[in-house]
Amino acid sequence: MPPRMRSGGRLVVIGGDAAGMSAASRARRLRPDVEIVVLERGDIVSYGACSLPYYIAGEVESRDDLIVHDADFFRRERHIDVRIRTEAVELRPRERTVVCRTELGEESLTYDALILATGASAVRPPLPGVDLPGVHTLRTVPDGDAIRDRLAELGADVAAHGAVRATIVGGGYIGLEMAEALVARNARVTIIELLPHVLATLDPDMSDLVVRELLDRQVIVRTETGVEAFEPGDDGSVGWVLADGQRLATDIALVAVGVRPNVDLAKKAGIDLGRTGAIAVDPRQITSEPMVLAAGDCAESPHIVSGRSTWVPLGTTANKQGRIAGENAVGGDIRFAGVAGTNVTKVFGLTVAQTGLSTAGAEGEGLAPDSVRITASTRSHAYPGGGRISVKLVFDPGTGRLLGGQLVGVEGVAKRIDTLATALAAKMDVRDLAGVDMSYAPPFAPVWDPLLIAANQAVKKLSRERVV
Amino acid sequence: MPPRMRSGGRLVVIGGDAAGMSAASRARRLRPDVEIVVLERGDIVSYGACSLPYYIAGEVESRDDLIVHDADFFRRERHIDVRIRTEAVELRPRERTVVCRTELGEESLTYDALILATGASAVRPPLPGVDLPGVHTLRTVPDGDAIRDRLAELGADVAAHGAVRATIVGGGYIGLEMAEALVARNARVTIIELLPHVLATLDPDMSDLVVRELLDRQVIVRTETGVEAFEPGDDGSVGWVLADGQRLATDIALVAVGVRPNVDLAKKAGIDLGRTGAIAVDPRQITSEPMVLAAGDCAESPHIVSGRSTWVPLGTTANKQGRIAGENAVGGDIRFAGVAGTNVTKVFGLTVAQTGLSTAGAEGEGLAPDSVRITASTRSHAYPGGGRISVKLVFDPGTGRLLGGQLVGVEGVAKRIDTLATALAAKMDVRDLAGVDMSYAPPFAPVWDPLLIAANQAVKKLSRERVV
Repeated sequence: MPPRMRSGGRLVVIGGDAAGMSAASRARRLRPDVEIVVLERGDIVSYGACSLPYYIAGEVESRDDLIVHDADFFRRERHIDVRIRTEAVELRPRERTVVCRTELGEESLTYDALILATGASAVRPPLPGVDLPGVHTLRTVPDGDAIRDRLAELGADVAAHGAVRATIVGGGYIGLEMAEALVARNARVTIIELLPHVLATLDPDMSDLVVRELLDRQVIVRTETGVEAFEPGDDGSVGWVLADGQRLATDIALVAVGVRPNVDLAKKAGIDLGRTGAIAVDPRQITSEPMVLAAGDCAESPHIVSGRSTWVPLGTTANKQGRIAGENAVGGDIRFAGVAGTNVTKVFGLTVAQTGLSTAGAEGEGLAPDSVRITASTRSHAYPGGGRISVKLVFDPGTGRLLGGQLVGVEGVAKRIDTLATALAAKMDVRDLAGVDMSYAPPFAPVWDPLLIAANQAVKKLSRERVV
Repeated sequence: MPPRMRSGGRLVVIGGDAAGMSAASRARRLRPDVEIVVLERGDIVSYGACSLPYYIAGEVESRDDLIVHDADFFRRERHIDVRIRTEAVELRPRERTVVCRTELGEESLTYDALILATGASAVRPPLPGVDLPGVHTLRTVPDGDAIRDRLAELGADVAAHGAVRATIVGGGYIGLEMAEALVARNARVTIIELLPHVLATLDPDMSDLVVRELLDRQVIVRTETGVEAFEPGDDGSVGWVLADGQRLATDIALVAVGVRPNVDLAKKAGIDLGRTGAIAVDPRQITSEPMVLAAGDCAESPHIVSGRSTWVPLGTTANKQGRIAGENAVGGDIRFAGVAGTNVTKVFGLTVAQTGLSTAGAEGEGLAPDSVRITASTRSHAYPGGGRISVKLVFDPGTGRLLGGQLVGVEGVAKRIDTLATALAAKMDVRDLAGVDMSYAPPFAPVWDPLLIAANQAVKKLSRERVV
């Protein structure tokens, strides 16, 4: 059961980004009569990390646009005691106390309920030279500022070798979004990926479509390539990346090999971590300590397809879990529906989206999935414009149950994936999906929506033996 | 049970558009060993009626683009005996015979199974002057040609009064799409609608958003206005429209007051019509005569929300029903999942979409629905471009079950409606919808998708009495 909060009780939230501020705001809305304190170790609360690549590209012009609301807004409008530059250094669940450190020293704070919203941090592998100036990660607004500053510095030198040479280590979503951002800033970009394919959450037959787009945009993609070190150039900042024995001249390097949940505080407090290494929570976001909840990138989520705990650190989940944790921390009783791992990203002229399990992901869960892949037009054949969209559906060959979907196309991808996410939430099989009354008008779809074409293909595979 | 077709048996399909050609093609794919005859009274088979407004606007440049495959293609590639300019004039189910008429005379054709795919026709109300040159309907390719020809004729005269004056009678989807098409052809457009609101299938709070867009584009919208007559101008073609006692100068008039199913042949053959006036069919598309199936705009469909028979003449349904009828006519056994009435249209800079029941529609079914309406951004607040999208959800206040949804916005509408159509197919309630893991990236959506914002509002309304 969620904790019951007495009037005048205190909720402490650790972390002031999406999950933390959603939790604090939700708690405040439900309970004007409790004290709410947010501890944020940085300077900034409530920022949009997902917009950082567009900030670097220059599409998001102002740094202010990245910040949804500043700390003053929460203090003034929502009566939330937001304390920036305040780091929670120790959590003592038995005493219901959190120790926090500021420039002025340490302070103990008691709580009636506490929410861990400590987020995740960019992984910085311990490679030689990884701390050289010009070797960046991208997770926070200051990270974004540093990359912008570096690009501005380099601007003056560009004439020397024609363009800024950028090396991106890691071909995941951030790596690919940053490839586009850096090309927009006129850089020559090389992506180095250790695995055989970029976008490893997609199946290779789909990620290959994205590689083609990268190559078309003059981005060099080197897969199955390990980075060994960063070496300084003449000015002391990064000048070379060593990868599989080769030295690549580099003016700026981005390490985008993933993130890991910030769980040190929880771990030291004896709070259980889950199989993924993130904080284990029940559907009400409650941890192994009954008065401690967790939400966002530091916490696990139940996967609606596999049924197992998973760790999918995304803004959507952080906002939802934060809202649920905030409600439950002050006496509510609501549950998180779980994640399908739905995501979407723009890679130059393509949009790439995914929900549920890939073929490889389903195999990893011990299933023996079947799949279909089709390519169709995004508009009626008569209507000008548009282009191609590829749809992959992964399903159980015995029951026909939909397990996941992947889309790559020039338009109509981002919200088409939600149809599949909804089908997963409803545990539909591919026959059900083939029966959905989807919309059609020439500017937006062919009369058989690409999802229906794919679903019909899957049905055909299921019923291949059936005599008609 | 669907009819069983002997090898060498004959399937006759009456009507060569979406439903008819889908049926014939599907039957051929499953059964290379049967004879398939399609009777089409016109010249053209397999055309895209939904693209006609874009053909008139000039966006679809070539008439050939409207035609998916011509009759020769079906004869040559699919061995389907397509007979154009051949009208079925009498159906005798007991004798399994259809009488058809060509220029050469009448012929009787026996069948083992028959599919009625006779479509629907534009309603031409018996108003004085409705047959004047320059008074058009838009349903077929020749209709589109006639409008293009009229506009070309008028082109020369434009200098006289600045622009072609077009009057559209009827503010439904075709009327609004044609308003955009005629504005694209530099016409000054007036829409006259008898009802208090255009797009009567939407609730007024949503259709009002569309009216605003029409007015912004200089289209005059006159609601609650009845047309009394068309009067000739000096050249003998339409010159005036009489509406509520006023005379509107008009160079071209489009009557777009709806369509009616072509059921005369079925009716005379003693085949049952349903409550909507279209042909009654079971889920296998079989009519009251066991060897006669019906599909497309001439047939009813089960509505997945109301559970009742409905008549929603749309290309998507025609294709699906045709496919099912074609399969079942030759020995298959598949069922149509039903319709939600999902539709989408582009009205200048807005996209308008709908699925399931509106508030008025639900009330018409004897329900007492509740609803929410929200307006949100189509992109992350940081990301440039985009605009507003309005979402209306209609739901049952007792159970929370989703009954329908309406969307009006500048982008991301067409395929977002499919999420709601999928939720309706799965009989989700608004809590389930609020739990769907929808996609987010700054170029495509805010972190809380507008559908989730609306679903959360609906949940809040449901649980207003709940103590937290």
